[in-house]
Amino acid sequence: MTTPISSDDLNLDDYEVGYDIPAKPGMKEEDIQTPCLILDLDALERNIRKMGDYAKSHGMRHRSHGKMHKSVDVQRLQQDMGGAVGVCCQKVSEAEAFARGGIREILVSNQVRDAAKIDRLARLPKLGASVIVCVDDVANIPDLSAAAQKHGTEIGVFVEIDCGAGRCGVIGADKVVEIAKAADAAPGLTFKGLQAYQGAMQHMDDYDARKAKLDAAIAQVTEAVEALKAAGLETELVSGGGTGSYYFESNSGVYNELQCGSYAFMDADYGRIKDKDGNRIDKNEWENALFILTSVMSHAKPDKAVVDAGLKAQSVDSGLPFIYGRDDVEYVKCSDEHGVVADPQGVLKVGEKLKLVPGHCDPTCNVHDWYVGVRGGVVETIWPVSARGKGY
Amino acid sequence: MTTPISSDDLNLDDYEVGYDIPAKPGMKEEDIQTPCLILDLDALERNIRKMGDYAKSHGMRHRSHGKMHKSVDVQRLQQDMGGAVGVCCQKVSEAEAFARGGIREILVSNQVRDAAKIDRLARLPKLGASVIVCVDDVANIPDLSAAAQKHGTEIGVFVEIDCGAGRCGVIGADKVVEIAKAADAAPGLTFKGLQAYQGAMQHMDDYDARKAKLDAAIAQVTEAVEALKAAGLETELVSGGGTGSYYFESNSGVYNELQCGSYAFMDADYGRIKDKDGNRIDKNEWENALFILTSVMSHAKPDKAVVDAGLKAQSVDSGLPFIYGRDDVEYVKCSDEHGVVADPQGVLKVGEKLKLVPGHCDPTCNVHDWYVGVRGGVVETIWPVSARGKGY
Repeated sequence: MTTPISSDDLNLDDYEVGYDIPAKPGMKEEDIQTPCLILDLDALERNIRKMGDYAKSHGMRHRSHGKMHKSVDVQRLQQDMGGAVGVCCQKVSEAEAFARGGIREILVSNQVRDAAKIDRLARLPKLGASVIVCVDDVANIPDLSAAAQKHGTEIGVFVEIDCGAGRCGVIGADKVVEIAKAADAAPGLTFKGLQAYQGAMQHMDDYDARKAKLDAAIAQVTEAVEALKAAGLETELVSGGGTGSYYFESNSGVYNELQCGSYAFMDADYGRIKDKDGNRIDKNEWENALFILTSVMSHAKPDKAVVDAGLKAQSVDSGLPFIYGRDDVEYVKCSDEHGVVADPQGVLKVGEKLKLVPGHCDPTCNVHDWYVGVRGGVVETIWPVSARGKGY
Repeated sequence: MTTPISSDDLNLDDYEVGYDIPAKPGMKEEDIQTPCLILDLDALERNIRKMGDYAKSHGMRHRSHGKMHKSVDVQRLQQDMGGAVGVCCQKVSEAEAFARGGIREILVSNQVRDAAKIDRLARLPKLGASVIVCVDDVANIPDLSAAAQKHGTEIGVFVEIDCGAGRCGVIGADKVVEIAKAADAAPGLTFKGLQAYQGAMQHMDDYDARKAKLDAAIAQVTEAVEALKAAGLETELVSGGGTGSYYFESNSGVYNELQCGSYAFMDADYGRIKDKDGNRIDKNEWENALFILTSVMSHAKPDKAVVDAGLKAQSVDSGLPFIYGRDDVEYVKCSDEHGVVADPQGVLKVGEKLKLVPGHCDPTCNVHDWYVGVRGGVVETIWPVSARGKGY
């Protein structure tokens, strides 16, 4: 199997532009085959440095979230240029892709319950990576412990708190303590801390509404840390925080690790949320670095153009994309392979390329095999979406 | 590049279950790694035979739509077992995947305007496939003709009529004749007929509402065919029709080729539409053959289970999936890697597997690399989603 994990093991001679891959380094931006994902490398690097500086100046570890980009190359940039300490991901097979790509500190920020997956998780340290997993059920502990013992490895445990997202995670400090104690006592496992990520609030537009949600989460976490201390357990790490909340966790006095992902690429849905001064966060805080490059492929009606990026080039769960840098045309409808663009003045020409900012970056990146890194109008690099299809 | 085109060139020894691939032949269904797509092979074969019998008994050619499954193996089954004459697809790179997989009659049911893509299109016959493409702009004709002449090949041309979907295609018989004449006169091109697919109406629940839309399309097509005849042009093929409309085209007296896709797999959105007796079409007409297999991976709240199939395992553009064969639990919310399942009676257990019928099959299949073919509870076959990622 020659699927490349990173640009290191990508032999571009094996790939044909327009069939296997959308572009090769050195090509002009206008010759890139569409639809595909392009990264504005300057914007990406500014975002990564900015978050790195923020975390450092606030004394926070930053474990960047690889579920967003699924790319070993992007993760390396976050570590090398942004000081990230390691990666978060959601699936064991994703974790394996990152470990095979040389990432040394991995958090599976999710529950792992299937026996075969637990076995793979326990083998991850043999690939050179330390591993932490989330637990929200004390019944999971013996299975994790048995697998770690079988393979002679160590698995770190975060107890996951449901701090309002209403998905995985326990509610109540007593349950946190119960699981932490079990992990602490189990051979092959180490209680490492708390997972307390409030996913649902990240996308609330209003700053004060987000703050209220995070205040509630911080109160839960504080109570849990105190209860753990009373039970004789040290909470080494308290991890959480995303692009819509990291300043709350960073100033909470109780969190010490961030898990931001979308800040690096940005998307239309995150762009809409407001900072404390009421500005969209894609104006002053983070730059759009990720785009779906698309071409006009039909303009049979004067006021309507059709572009070649539809549902198979993006996820529209969080709304349609917007067209970057244009207010004269609007992406108004999406079907499998087509996007309809309202062009009331008839300004678009067949063949013209547009940059779409996707509604939601994570599942959009998941439908593509490649990132085309562009700088100054020229393709600089091609990065595989290393963990694409790694949903197990 | 060793990405397999079909099961013929898939060496299963190169793939690891749980990392590269969800299962291997011979495995029990309960051991399949989730989330993944599974096909009920019995149901799939019954659907394929049924559509084949219908087309044959109505004197229609069936050019099954590969944009739905993107799989050479499924297409072969549609040809061998269902009498399909060839494939439709939407992209040149998809067409190449089918041609490389030995499919000999290919319609790109879409416009191709980019110079590099036109060049690839013109080379397709060198892979052994005849090729037809849709045109909705007379300015496209010289480019197609030049490429066909350059490569010494022949490209068939369908003039696309916009029969109500409001996307690509021309409106008015005069425009149809203009493009057909230009194609007829252009070296390397052959005018083959009309593309008249009404996509938007396929998903209207009400049978009579769908019929009214198709009646309007049939009137447009009839007018175009007569205008072409008056201009001395024979319309060899009139192609269109989907899972929600094929009986209208088949009884129209003017269409002679169907392009159905979703009937083979089915999905929740198509399932909701009604036949002429008011029954859901997934009750009497077509069987659900495609499922997202998913596992319960958290049940920290008594009335709510969390499963491992979220937005990265499906597209929710046409609504959430339903849980097959269960009315006691309901998939109520979807995030990137999670689905929330309402379980009011607390009947689900961690590790339990559920079969989801996806909201929309085409973009759901597009996020997966593999189909796991199951019969009698045992994995019988693994088929690559041959044209996954082939969006160019």
